[in-house]
Amino acid sequence: MAVTPLYKQFADQLAASIRDGVLRPGERIASVRIASQQHKVSVTTVVRAYELLESRGIIESQPQSGYFVREQPEAPPKPALRTTSREDHPAWQESTEVDVSRLVLATLKTIQQDGTVPLGSPYPNPALFPSHRLAQYAGRIARHASQSSVFDDLPPGHPELLRQIARRYLENGLKVDPEEIVITVGATEAINLCLQAVARPGDTIAVETPTFYAMLHAIERLGMRALEIPTDPQRGIDVGALEERMKTQAIAACMVMPNFQNPLGFQMPDSEKERLVRLAEQHQMPVIENAVYSELYYGNAHPSSLKNYDRDGLVLHCSSFSKSLTSAYRIGWAMPGRYRAQVEKLKFLNTLATPTAPQRAIAEYLTQGGYERHLRRVRRAFAQQRDMMRHFVLRFFPAGTQVSEPQGGYVLWVELPQGVDAMELYRRSLALGITVAPGRIFAATNRYSHFIRLNYSYAWSKETEQALKLVGKLVEELAG
Amino acid sequence: MAVTPLYKQFADQLAASIRDGVLRPGERIASVRIASQQHKVSVTTVVRAYELLESRGIIESQPQSGYFVREQPEAPPKPALRTTSREDHPAWQESTEVDVSRLVLATLKTIQQDGTVPLGSPYPNPALFPSHRLAQYAGRIARHASQSSVFDDLPPGHPELLRQIARRYLENGLKVDPEEIVITVGATEAINLCLQAVARPGDTIAVETPTFYAMLHAIERLGMRALEIPTDPQRGIDVGALEERMKTQAIAACMVMPNFQNPLGFQMPDSEKERLVRLAEQHQMPVIENAVYSELYYGNAHPSSLKNYDRDGLVLHCSSFSKSLTSAYRIGWAMPGRYRAQVEKLKFLNTLATPTAPQRAIAEYLTQGGYERHLRRVRRAFAQQRDMMRHFVLRFFPAGTQVSEPQGGYVLWVELPQGVDAMELYRRSLALGITVAPGRIFAATNRYSHFIRLNYSYAWSKETEQALKLVGKLVEELAG
Repeated sequence: MAVTPLYKQFADQLAASIRDGVLRPGERIASVRIASQQHKVSVTTVVRAYELLESRGIIESQPQSGYFVREQPEAPPKPALRTTSREDHPAWQESTEVDVSRLVLATLKTIQQDGTVPLGSPYPNPALFPSHRLAQYAGRIARHASQSSVFDDLPPGHPELLRQIARRYLENGLKVDPEEIVITVGATEAINLCLQAVARPGDTIAVETPTFYAMLHAIERLGMRALEIPTDPQRGIDVGALEERMKTQAIAACMVMPNFQNPLGFQMPDSEKERLVRLAEQHQMPVIENAVYSELYYGNAHPSSLKNYDRDGLVLHCSSFSKSLTSAYRIGWAMPGRYRAQVEKLKFLNTLATPTAPQRAIAEYLTQGGYERHLRRVRRAFAQQRDMMRHFVLRFFPAGTQVSEPQGGYVLWVELPQGVDAMELYRRSLALGITVAPGRIFAATNRYSHFIRLNYSYAWSKETEQALKLVGKLVEELAG
Repeated sequence: MAVTPLYKQFADQLAASIRDGVLRPGERIASVRIASQQHKVSVTTVVRAYELLESRGIIESQPQSGYFVREQPEAPPKPALRTTSREDHPAWQESTEVDVSRLVLATLKTIQQDGTVPLGSPYPNPALFPSHRLAQYAGRIARHASQSSVFDDLPPGHPELLRQIARRYLENGLKVDPEEIVITVGATEAINLCLQAVARPGDTIAVETPTFYAMLHAIERLGMRALEIPTDPQRGIDVGALEERMKTQAIAACMVMPNFQNPLGFQMPDSEKERLVRLAEQHQMPVIENAVYSELYYGNAHPSSLKNYDRDGLVLHCSSFSKSLTSAYRIGWAMPGRYRAQVEKLKFLNTLATPTAPQRAIAEYLTQGGYERHLRRVRRAFAQQRDMMRHFVLRFFPAGTQVSEPQGGYVLWVELPQGVDAMELYRRSLALGITVAPGRIFAATNRYSHFIRLNYSYAWSKETEQALKLVGKLVEELAG
């Protein structure tokens, strides 16, 4: 076996770090003395390694300042980070078992890519957010938050933000005490914590079908079982069907999105909301309510929440600012009713605390006012864009295509002609730089194999129209 | 039964919201029209309710602008949020079953209170952080991050931060590819995700004893069992004892803090680190390494990590900036070796993404340089303060008291004379405005009933000395 001298091994490792982009052209590398200490090799070894790298043109010494990484035009460094990786991306192609959460992450990552038409995105167009004002507040708060500490806003969270959230509910007709609220890292964390607070591994959780995938993931990850209850595209979960199932089966909890459900877009009628809560009371069954789209209504008044009908504290209401104000801050919350103490404790165990500065920036925004005006503008835009998206899908997609009629939010649920494989459509669209969300991710099984979800939050443009036309053509091909 | 008219019910609700501090003096309340829509009551009801509240002096109308909450000098509003609540605080006093995680949260919350001497804190003095520079970067980044979106830094995280972390490891003698890293909400999330990636409910996890409570909480929360392995105050976990146990018992994973363990402060010798990793290899047992204190060494060189000896990718290395740079940003990470794909996926399911702005601010700080200089200053301060704390504990506490000799970090482990009840000491100290961390929180059982942990990261002052003297007196009383 050939022996590689120590100095050469050391040089090779350093060269690899430069190739990997860990050290970049122009950056200084450790001095001989420091490198010798840190890597526990002799000074001579380091000197010989540096000489070797210099002779190869990988580093250069500059008098009085030390060694620096040279520009390497001949071998362009690979990007510091892939946007989609081998594991992340089409893992589902190689396996018969679809890993839905991996597919979702892959879908999201394609949206990150420049030039992709983000029809598959679950998030609203960030251009609609009052980002400039929010950024001003965030900037000011960050600059003044010197010596801020994790202790500042331990669970339940920043007091002024709790108060502003409670005030906002009050304006919308729901009396909330700030102490009922626990701030979380987005609604994702809120849903996870609420589910863990009310159910145990092996328990059965009733969900809508189709349903928002993050709810399925939370159930699966905690070792619970999802029971999909028939869901009407206009009226939401079939409370009667749920009641029937409860006669023969133990159901530990129910998770629903009563307003502008993702992906169906319905708003449950008040009577159905109340009926669901009464059923829950009767069986003392907790209900997790995902309310992230509630602010994005097209009607005249803010829709009610299950929480409005909750007399026993059985409703665990989860929401966030990610769909209505900013998605980058990751600020959500739970109002867990009688489970508040458990959820606060789980929050502490899961992530200890939510970063302080984003909480304060949003609190400041809400204090300064203008949120309602911003929301009115967004709701108007979404209502118009819904009509555009429906119109063009029905025009460009083949006969047999059906589309939902969302009453709020910004996603359209599209049923393609029978036999069209939405996963194949997803792949072919992606090859054209267009993302769509395949029906596969909205159920535990592949029952929505010929459905897709489209995002209409982006300002309507020629490009959108062109993208829809292309997807329509692909659907036609696949419909054969 | 007396019937309360609708307008009076509505007025009472609004009055309660004002009393609770949800609406504050000087704030405008909803117009009659809006309130009528939102609360689904008639305009007449709202008008009569507002008149009633006006007659009671709770609100006032201002011409052309609407109704406002009046100052209410006679009934001072209660604080918007208690700092310690009934559920959070001395719940442990009322129960024989100690809820350790609740006790920890209660301890942390007492530290928040003004004037408390934070000897029980797990966090370093924030005055030592380069907060001003960090805040400048954060401010600049926040202002320029308009239209930032959750897509910007999906797991694994912000690319430049990943690169800077990898570079820092390289400087300390560990070759890391940025792609090995997953950014998390503090090390707390990293530990939770790593544990879930490698073990299942019911599994046994080997830990040090005493051990850092967050590790015990993660084990308990996931329905696993902690197996406490004897741990030497100077050399760390007894690898031989662990090996013995593995002969008779299935151990799914091991969780340790090899450098400056909380609470013991030891640095495992390199030979022991290597021995532990080889044992893990032999049994293909994953090892979760908590490295949050590794940067805070008092010796001449950065200590090695278990990761330095890891040939098979079995070490899941977790760390954060919370102990060395800023605790308020909540930025941590995992390098999960061969479990990277699972941890990235679990991160996505747990909190979707880590907020972007704090990641970018820290990346900018690391790019601009000065971290090592800051750390040198902190290490020097901690080494001096360790000596002060040891000196005064030995001077003020009764004979029979023993103290640890930390080689890094900023906490002292104190064994009180036998029979001293550290929980009672915790309570009595708190009554004097001094927190100490009771031994109870560092084990699954009460085996450290006469131990406390003290934080020496704060600049030494007369007040510290006075506090130690008082605690020493209490110990004397309790020693009877």
